[in-house]
Amino acid sequence: MLPSSILPKPSHKSEPQNNIMVVATQSLETTCINSIRFLAIDAVEKAKSGHPGLPMGAAPMAFTLWDKFLKFNPKNPNWINRDRFVLSAGHGSMLQYALLHLFGYDSVTIEDIKQFRQWGSHTPGHPENFETAGIEVTTGPLGQGICNGVGLAMAEAHMAATFNKPDAALIDHYTYVILGDGCNMEGVSGEACSLAGHLGLGKLIALYDDNHISIDGDTQVSFTEDVGKRFEAYGWQVIVVANGDTDTAAIQTAIEQAKAETTKPTLIKVRTTIGFGSPNKAGTAGVHGAALGTDEIVATRKQLDWPHEPFIIPEDARAHFAKAVTRGAEAEAEWNKLWETYKTKYTEEAARFDRQTNYKLPEGWEKSLPTYSPEDKPLATRQTSEKTLNALAQAIPEFIGGSADLTHSNLTQLKGFADFQKGSYHGRNLRFGVREHGMAAICNGIYLHKTGLIPFCATFLVFVDYLRGALRLSALAETQNIYVLTHDSIALGEDGPTHQPVETIASLRVMPNLLVFRPADGNETSGAYKIAIERRTTSSVMAMTRQALPQLAGSSIDAVARGGYIVDGDLDIPDLIMIATGSEVSLCIEAAKKIRESGKKVRVISMPCVEIFEEQDKAYRDAILPPATKKRLVVEAGSTFGWHKYCGDEGDVLGVDRFGASAPGGILMEKFGFTVENVVAKAKAVLG
Amino acid sequence: MLPSSILPKPSHKSEPQNNIMVVATQSLETTCINSIRFLAIDAVEKAKSGHPGLPMGAAPMAFTLWDKFLKFNPKNPNWINRDRFVLSAGHGSMLQYALLHLFGYDSVTIEDIKQFRQWGSHTPGHPENFETAGIEVTTGPLGQGICNGVGLAMAEAHMAATFNKPDAALIDHYTYVILGDGCNMEGVSGEACSLAGHLGLGKLIALYDDNHISIDGDTQVSFTEDVGKRFEAYGWQVIVVANGDTDTAAIQTAIEQAKAETTKPTLIKVRTTIGFGSPNKAGTAGVHGAALGTDEIVATRKQLDWPHEPFIIPEDARAHFAKAVTRGAEAEAEWNKLWETYKTKYTEEAARFDRQTNYKLPEGWEKSLPTYSPEDKPLATRQTSEKTLNALAQAIPEFIGGSADLTHSNLTQLKGFADFQKGSYHGRNLRFGVREHGMAAICNGIYLHKTGLIPFCATFLVFVDYLRGALRLSALAETQNIYVLTHDSIALGEDGPTHQPVETIASLRVMPNLLVFRPADGNETSGAYKIAIERRTTSSVMAMTRQALPQLAGSSIDAVARGGYIVDGDLDIPDLIMIATGSEVSLCIEAAKKIRESGKKVRVISMPCVEIFEEQDKAYRDAILPPATKKRLVVEAGSTFGWHKYCGDEGDVLGVDRFGASAPGGILMEKFGFTVENVVAKAKAVLG
Repeated sequence: MLPSSILPKPSHKSEPQNNIMVVATQSLETTCINSIRFLAIDAVEKAKSGHPGLPMGAAPMAFTLWDKFLKFNPKNPNWINRDRFVLSAGHGSMLQYALLHLFGYDSVTIEDIKQFRQWGSHTPGHPENFETAGIEVTTGPLGQGICNGVGLAMAEAHMAATFNKPDAALIDHYTYVILGDGCNMEGVSGEACSLAGHLGLGKLIALYDDNHISIDGDTQVSFTEDVGKRFEAYGWQVIVVANGDTDTAAIQTAIEQAKAETTKPTLIKVRTTIGFGSPNKAGTAGVHGAALGTDEIVATRKQLDWPHEPFIIPEDARAHFAKAVTRGAEAEAEWNKLWETYKTKYTEEAARFDRQTNYKLPEGWEKSLPTYSPEDKPLATRQTSEKTLNALAQAIPEFIGGSADLTHSNLTQLKGFADFQKGSYHGRNLRFGVREHGMAAICNGIYLHKTGLIPFCATFLVFVDYLRGALRLSALAETQNIYVLTHDSIALGEDGPTHQPVETIASLRVMPNLLVFRPADGNETSGAYKIAIERRTTSSVMAMTRQALPQLAGSSIDAVARGGYIVDGDLDIPDLIMIATGSEVSLCIEAAKKIRESGKKVRVISMPCVEIFEEQDKAYRDAILPPATKKRLVVEAGSTFGWHKYCGDEGDVLGVDRFGASAPGGILMEKFGFTVENVVAKAKAVLG
Repeated sequence: MLPSSILPKPSHKSEPQNNIMVVATQSLETTCINSIRFLAIDAVEKAKSGHPGLPMGAAPMAFTLWDKFLKFNPKNPNWINRDRFVLSAGHGSMLQYALLHLFGYDSVTIEDIKQFRQWGSHTPGHPENFETAGIEVTTGPLGQGICNGVGLAMAEAHMAATFNKPDAALIDHYTYVILGDGCNMEGVSGEACSLAGHLGLGKLIALYDDNHISIDGDTQVSFTEDVGKRFEAYGWQVIVVANGDTDTAAIQTAIEQAKAETTKPTLIKVRTTIGFGSPNKAGTAGVHGAALGTDEIVATRKQLDWPHEPFIIPEDARAHFAKAVTRGAEAEAEWNKLWETYKTKYTEEAARFDRQTNYKLPEGWEKSLPTYSPEDKPLATRQTSEKTLNALAQAIPEFIGGSADLTHSNLTQLKGFADFQKGSYHGRNLRFGVREHGMAAICNGIYLHKTGLIPFCATFLVFVDYLRGALRLSALAETQNIYVLTHDSIALGEDGPTHQPVETIASLRVMPNLLVFRPADGNETSGAYKIAIERRTTSSVMAMTRQALPQLAGSSIDAVARGGYIVDGDLDIPDLIMIATGSEVSLCIEAAKKIRESGKKVRVISMPCVEIFEEQDKAYRDAILPPATKKRLVVEAGSTFGWHKYCGDEGDVLGVDRFGASAPGGILMEKFGFTVENVVAKAKAVLG
């Protein structure tokens, strides 16, 4: 039992606030806020699962934001110029579902709320953009949402700089984020917020639900830093609301002040009580992630003066919330007028805007993809990637991205285009600094702005481990984020095992809804990017070499669309199949020549994308990998894990199942057995 | 060409500094510093690979630290009470190799330096603790080293609190870290440094090589935050050295001031010029990661007044550096005296200290492991894990760890033991906050203190993605870090796909030198921890269920030591083999009963650790998985990737190759096919 001095005061006893708007009387406002609280309490109780504490504590700030500031049209969740709202503390999902329901979105009915966290419902445990209209980004893994928010604000700034005219602010909206202690403890949020400060994203406004409680209890056990000062150090405006439980006027003033600062993002530190209204659990970790329980719900109803049955919203609150529908329709109608004028006045820009935001690619864009013939000089695939990135940048103006401080190693500079910086948001070269995780999460946000932007981001392949938390959300949230990951094997050489991916590619192939490309030459590079650009709801990894590779006679852009294909050999049933990817394809072609000298029929399969090969029908797969040919050798300078599905019981895999070493790349490849001689020996062993 | 105003002034022209120690005259000091610089310049040039810029700029701070402060004995790099030095900016490895060589470590000879970054050398591209004596931790992936430093300082504090007596400070040393802009941009460093501030680690001193340059150029392009203010917000002391290029007196004063502050860690922000001494490249990104080139090296020799041939160190410098050998031997001798007294005075503590630091486990510790019989009630493996963790905590005093704010979900509380907090460093419950990546990197540091501590850390399995950058270094650096990762499949239920591992276990199995355990019941849980404790240079993952599992008749602690074993069935050659892990083992045992009704011989293999099974000899593996039995079904509630090696061409895998969903766990398992009925159907399909 807590000392009564720290128990929250029941809001119906608090003094009337000096509201400066008249849309709601104090008591109606309280009713609205409690409507949010009790939907959360009752849904979690019914599910016997979920997190009531955050919605109960953050309801005042959320209501104030949605009621007085947020620009949205509930009947068109995709209205392009809406404000973006992100619940970074995604475990508080019932807050967002309650808001969506009460403010009139059709995607969350009262029945959906009763089905919270149940099979097939639109109200999953954490907010999922692909499941529920009105949810902008998928949150739950802490820290991701605020980074997505930075990405959304960057997308807004870029779209505005690209399309807006002095008389027509086509894209002009805010990005609001509610985040908690957990988000602020995660390093990824620090990365993105530091960059947001650097970029001066004045239309990013984050409300920090500062409730001093995390799952383990009081934040005093591990989190005593001065968060506000840290954000000031990042270059943010920081505003404090001392009493976020009842002082909605202060919340309102803070948001106004945040909007008034146009050159910096703003953090509003709102001191709240987790589980506000629960007499025995408020202010404790006990209310964070478990249902309140029958008795405590009765007590909370009493404390908050809430006589209504579960899931019942009082009429006056319903009527007030409903105003958002009219407000939203009017706002969109006004924007539609602006758009009509824009279309007549700025035809060219309007045509692009229309095309891009409807996810149509520019006519003939694919013709820009570079092609190669065997006469062309050997190039590293990071170099052919550079050519392709630059071709795409010319052909597709919505293509935008950059590297985590490895621009000239990853070769990701879009030449002739500006940097995206404070004062030059039209720029398309993003400078992420050494912030891989933040970078990936930001790119998820850029994509999820849903204005057609195609983001790419880059680092060394091995450092995908730093950003995997965000990469998983790229895949789950059905984004189109292109990961340009160079230096893709031990062949990168001297930097040694800390920098050499070994297990990395296999670890990515296991991820659902992610395409992992490892092109063997220039044509395959173009083919890989072609697919990555065409698939608008799938993210891709481009694993690119540091070292030069020859341009193959048998490769083509189109072949990549099959995932795997015969790069050397014919359609006769072979004695031996060799399967390789990337830098090992040319090696296998050389080895095949040797093996053929002994009269064996050898086929070499290049498999730039296993996932796409698996999508092909059985007839194609069997034509490429005839079941009759059991003698198979897979060659890839990475983990052998997963390849037995392809080499089968009688085959073998030449790979790398240990960490690499520091030495020149050519020497390492030799030491690890990636020589024609060793491949031939392995193949002969398989042939028996 | 840079404007001459920002070119560094040659140090031989600078005014004499007011040294307060007399160990070196100014000119000798400069000679020593330049000795470091030119070893780096010449080694990188010879290798045509590496990073000369950092060693050239950070040589003054590094020399000052090593010459005037660092307590070490070069002839015994493992002396237990040495100060720990971490080069977090690991790409500057030549700085550390030069220091080790010049200060008298036998592990780095001049020949080793000439073999920088070559096959088989002791001087790999980035510092590797397992390769070169005197290197404490493996760095290179940015941000990790400073986090390791936090872990080293925590280990020091814990060992001191545990063993020191008013008259005998057995463990009493500093942890020094040199970190750069890259380390400070990485979120992981923010996580660990926030915790370090919270914990008030007064003996942690970080020197920030503030050179304003990262690979992409001036840090102005992406990193303009106020780093010092951020560290102050974390609760650190921050000191600025305005001229780190030549003002070694200021560096010295700053370190003294850092040591004087005993209640806070200190960041010394040392403003330096990257590539100091290079007339045309200093202060630019061009000198960061590439050899200077012949001409520029000539010019640099001229600028720094360095007439010596490559790899030649002047005698006066050699003589000065050599003093460290005597100094170190004396320091260790003094400590040895202290230790002799301690042994006679505090016999019990000394016995433990001796045992623990020699990596011997307490006699009979393994008897503490809980065992179970089928009569015992079903428990989630996170619950059997809790029992085991607590048994180990009682039996093994050097066992220490905690969770990233999920203590009561991961069930990792060590009951009856204190929290590790400022003022209670003897505590063994670590409170990491929501900082998974920092947590793992800190635990690497705790292990690498090499005083016998066995760290464990915990989060939900799916969030291993957040810490994978550090996990890879756990494996590579040969640490013993035990990852307790609960909620190991879709069966966790309502939290939904953001929280449900699907691909996660497969993605961990690909990692070299990492054991991935997925125990099926209480006995297997104890067996898994037994191995994790016994293997002193291998890290382990414990994948534990949220939901209850029955105690199996066929399981045992010893069986786990084989990785896979017959949990149900006999040694006759079976018609069908079912292979399962964790929660799916009991499911397969149930299914096997049904299948046997049709007269088939069925064997069920529990495979709690694939890696250990692969270590077994062929005879054992063939006895368990008879090659003659081609009909095999693998059942695991995770990705099927990698299992074809075991199910073979005629087998099948029942797994989960898509993201999960939000619903109660039991319903999900049913919907995803993990029912007796479906397993029987799959098995019958395999049997044909």
